[in-house]
Amino acid sequence: MSGRLTVIGLGPGNADQVTPEASRAVADASFFYGYKPYLDRLDLRGDQTRIASDNREELARSNEALAKAAEGHNVAVVSGGDPGVFAMAAAVCEAIEAGPTEWRGVDISVVPGVTAMLAVAARIGAPLGHDFCAISLSDNLKPWELIELRLLAAAGAGFVIALYNPISKARPWQLGRAFECLKAILPGTTPVIFGRAAGRPDERIDICLLANAEADMADMATCIIIGSPETRIIRRGEKPALVYTPRSAAGPRK
Amino acid sequence: MSGRLTVIGLGPGNADQVTPEASRAVADASFFYGYKPYLDRLDLRGDQTRIASDNREELARSNEALAKAAEGHNVAVVSGGDPGVFAMAAAVCEAIEAGPTEWRGVDISVVPGVTAMLAVAARIGAPLGHDFCAISLSDNLKPWELIELRLLAAAGAGFVIALYNPISKARPWQLGRAFECLKAILPGTTPVIFGRAAGRPDERIDICLLANAEADMADMATCIIIGSPETRIIRRGEKPALVYTPRSAAGPRK
Repeated sequence: MSGRLTVIGLGPGNADQVTPEASRAVADASFFYGYKPYLDRLDLRGDQTRIASDNREELARSNEALAKAAEGHNVAVVSGGDPGVFAMAAAVCEAIEAGPTEWRGVDISVVPGVTAMLAVAARIGAPLGHDFCAISLSDNLKPWELIELRLLAAAGAGFVIALYNPISKARPWQLGRAFECLKAILPGTTPVIFGRAAGRPDERIDICLLANAEADMADMATCIIIGSPETRIIRRGEKPALVYTPRSAAGPRK
Repeated sequence: MSGRLTVIGLGPGNADQVTPEASRAVADASFFYGYKPYLDRLDLRGDQTRIASDNREELARSNEALAKAAEGHNVAVVSGGDPGVFAMAAAVCEAIEAGPTEWRGVDISVVPGVTAMLAVAARIGAPLGHDFCAISLSDNLKPWELIELRLLAAAGAGFVIALYNPISKARPWQLGRAFECLKAILPGTTPVIFGRAAGRPDERIDICLLANAEADMADMATCIIIGSPETRIIRRGEKPALVYTPRSAAGPRK
């Protein structure tokens, strides 16, 4: 008897941004696996069980959840934001591929959510209004030289760049080094947005120019959006400024 | 007296994927501007007015909506998916920057939504599980040579690529040319996902390998995800295959 595993995206952290599909998936499941701060967002019933684990334990968590589902249970794995963007859906797939054959018989579904860069962008205008990329700045699972290569390729080709996992106690220097790389090839006037806890009570959204961007303006809950040379700031007096990237773009720089 | 303009993301097209925040913003507004198929998704009251316009009229629509809001009304501009991704939020910002000064006094807010690539990815596993980019294939507002440059830069640096606006009657050859570019630098075994109407009753999600990808497998409602060389397919017998991009990556190719 094979069960069901649903990877659920809880959105940026505001109950108002959780889709009805995600809420229903939460109501339907019996066992919940996730990073504790995400599980803490759920209002579970007495007949629902939560199993919290730390971050950086994604694969072990996926293995546990799949083993429980393979016993025939209805299991949920929860992520903040969207579970497909630097989150649990890929970890669950990795576990299925490496795991026992019976795990391939589990019904798997993924419930999408509003990922951090969309929530941050919405609070400031439309910085992702044209071609953009998302890069995890964590070098826990990939070499730093690959991250630099991607930053330079993206900025050089005119993509707006959203940085996930920008900094942590274990990764203190990487964000500063990323800014150095970008300052070498982008105009110092390029807008940079530091978006922390978008949509939550402790939200903080700051705009600065790339020339002034410093690593200590971010923490591990920040999503950073670095504009392209086309990205613009609209000043509006007492109203908050808007940052947007126009839908049109000129040709490649020669 | 300056009013309010809210740019609302209605998600992929399934009522179950509309956030409570978006539903509330719809309930609160009086005048609704948008592309007709998106307005058709709304169940408006008799005291709410809809003003439909065609696609490719985004700037004119934004101007009309801002003029109405500047008269003191509560105005909504609706988008499918997320309004910040190749959609109305950037058009509204462009209109504000180019428009009369009083438009800068309008209260602007953007309500994020689940954008197409997240909905498609969720239906197939976790193809966006590692660094990725989103590119609009429309050359209406940017030169084709810039699109090729971005495709090559992204694929060369190992990004997964989500293509929006892949093809239309007015743009018949661009997607075929894009596949030619990518086939020249990516392995023929790279997974490609054609995701049409994800989450809707007429949903269709197809997987193929890049070597076999053809432009006639897409229409204007398709979001295409092209894997990186790391992207994997898990076959599961009678269950649908899963496609995912691992969280880890090896170093740059030398």
